[in-house]
Amino acid sequence: MEDRLAAAMRFAVGLAEGARGVTSPNPPVGCVVLDAAGERVGEGATRPPGGPHAEVVALAEAGARARGGTAVVTLEPCAHYGRTPPCTDALIAAGIARVVYAVADPNPVASGGARTLEGAGVSTRGGLLADEVAKGPLRAWLHAVRHGRPHVTWKYAATLDGRVAAVDGTSRWISSAVSRAEVHELRGRVDAIVVGTGTIKVDDPALTARGSGGTPGARQPLRVVVGHTDLPDTARVLDDSAETLLARTHDPAEVLAALHARGVVDVLLEGGPTLAGAFTGAGLVDRVLLYLAPALLGAGPVALGASGVSTITEAHRLAVEEVTMSGPDVRVSAVPVRD
Amino acid sequence: MEDRLAAAMRFAVGLAEGARGVTSPNPPVGCVVLDAAGERVGEGATRPPGGPHAEVVALAEAGARARGGTAVVTLEPCAHYGRTPPCTDALIAAGIARVVYAVADPNPVASGGARTLEGAGVSTRGGLLADEVAKGPLRAWLHAVRHGRPHVTWKYAATLDGRVAAVDGTSRWISSAVSRAEVHELRGRVDAIVVGTGTIKVDDPALTARGSGGTPGARQPLRVVVGHTDLPDTARVLDDSAETLLARTHDPAEVLAALHARGVVDVLLEGGPTLAGAFTGAGLVDRVLLYLAPALLGAGPVALGASGVSTITEAHRLAVEEVTMSGPDVRVSAVPVRD
Repeated sequence: MEDRLAAAMRFAVGLAEGARGVTSPNPPVGCVVLDAAGERVGEGATRPPGGPHAEVVALAEAGARARGGTAVVTLEPCAHYGRTPPCTDALIAAGIARVVYAVADPNPVASGGARTLEGAGVSTRGGLLADEVAKGPLRAWLHAVRHGRPHVTWKYAATLDGRVAAVDGTSRWISSAVSRAEVHELRGRVDAIVVGTGTIKVDDPALTARGSGGTPGARQPLRVVVGHTDLPDTARVLDDSAETLLARTHDPAEVLAALHARGVVDVLLEGGPTLAGAFTGAGLVDRVLLYLAPALLGAGPVALGASGVSTITEAHRLAVEEVTMSGPDVRVSAVPVRD
Repeated sequence: MEDRLAAAMRFAVGLAEGARGVTSPNPPVGCVVLDAAGERVGEGATRPPGGPHAEVVALAEAGARARGGTAVVTLEPCAHYGRTPPCTDALIAAGIARVVYAVADPNPVASGGARTLEGAGVSTRGGLLADEVAKGPLRAWLHAVRHGRPHVTWKYAATLDGRVAAVDGTSRWISSAVSRAEVHELRGRVDAIVVGTGTIKVDDPALTARGSGGTPGARQPLRVVVGHTDLPDTARVLDDSAETLLARTHDPAEVLAALHARGVVDVLLEGGPTLAGAFTGAGLVDRVLLYLAPALLGAGPVALGASGVSTITEAHRLAVEEVTMSGPDVRVSAVPVRD
């Protein structure tokens, strides 16, 4: 049975990953319902805000076969009324005998789900694959709940010698087609993409998530342009392919507060050196995602501008959490080491 | 038997690795002698110039048990008189029945070993683990034979944002203790370390291979300082802990020609941005070895200066051959993609 539970949780993690980018400000959760014999009879992921939570979707599929069964879910079920009724009610009503979840709900308003279930005679168990879920689909949401601001991933592509463009400003394409496709896929799973007015002026990016062949994805993240400089009317970021927010400030904390107020949980920072330096200097980069292209330039701009470091002992220290190949490029994911 | 041969060759590769740094201009070769029953009865690696080659060392250990046996060797045995008699003579005299080697000798003077052996009734077979040997212990030597100049590895340590020091010049220590120990180990296996006068002026490095605790290694590579600027008498590179060559030129090709003439096969380039840019621009970097430290600075010098690239299509393109962790750092090894 233990193997079945772990397999079901892994399946639920996949469901949760698939819901990333459409659930904010709610968490992307996955749920699998096993019947009394341990067979998978229902599955679901959180629907967009206002729609049902993962448990309700999975229970609807399972129907009467949920009775006496087990719900395997990536996050402790909620016990409160939000835009939808508590999931605990739905689980109890369906006759679920046991709930196995990965991560306990850190939200003081929503927590208490396990206790509520236990009170109704449903056995509960938390912690199964908790680390995998906390670092995976729930990472940004957990961060936003704990810190009261969105999770920020700073993504950039650079050569082995740290350049993001040649000395004449050309940069297409520093990173490979595989890496660029990965970035588009990533854009489709975040809530907002943030750049500065300088990037708009220099590169005029569309900042949309596009599939192979350049076709736009079904869902587009909010485009956020930070700075006081007016944009040209022709800027691609002002087209109607996605919503765009002009954040007329230079303070990263103000930008994130505005995004938090809009329900943004997961932010991809794609700005140039000035904006990246401001976020880094303010301690507001939660993850660095570097696509390191095997090329050398010897001249040209670098990725990060002034970030408040004047001597080596003040360096912003990080820890590498993952290194993978992305086509010919090396992809490095690192997180700040905070004391 | 096939398994035994592969195991013997792997052992021979290890012997060859152990000889790296002491054999130039001769190749670091490893040899294992198996008796007629396939038991390992002798092993050896190339001794420093003037000393016996690997085959002779291994045969000496095997003695009479070599008769009817197999010699497993990383490089095709030489058939010519150099400072020592041909290894083919020694193998034939010892009654070896079969010679299995990895890499064929590319040296027009020395080649013909297999043919000579066949002519004396010794069966031969080449190619076993050839790729592993060619990319491993014989890499620099094969390069030097083919190109008539030493193999150059450019090694540097940089932060995720491509800085090699903070804006005030401080850089101790950008990379970790593990990475620094690895570099000392690497220094002990090359023939020469090359820097520019600028690096001497700024960092005053000793450029020696030191073990843990700072004790100097038994063998020290040649220290090479490139440039016209006079060094201060107090420069550590002028002490008597190792030999130092002052190369009064700015032309990397001239530097390598001078080193080639001295029998240098394997060069570690540890210079600053100007020298690294000159070598890269001249197409004289054969391997890039980057220790990428998980830190961000946002200001400070970068690793590579002008290398003749003015637009992105002219970028020096490489291919990543290996990515490993070195303590907390990411170690990337890349080689130029040459058309």
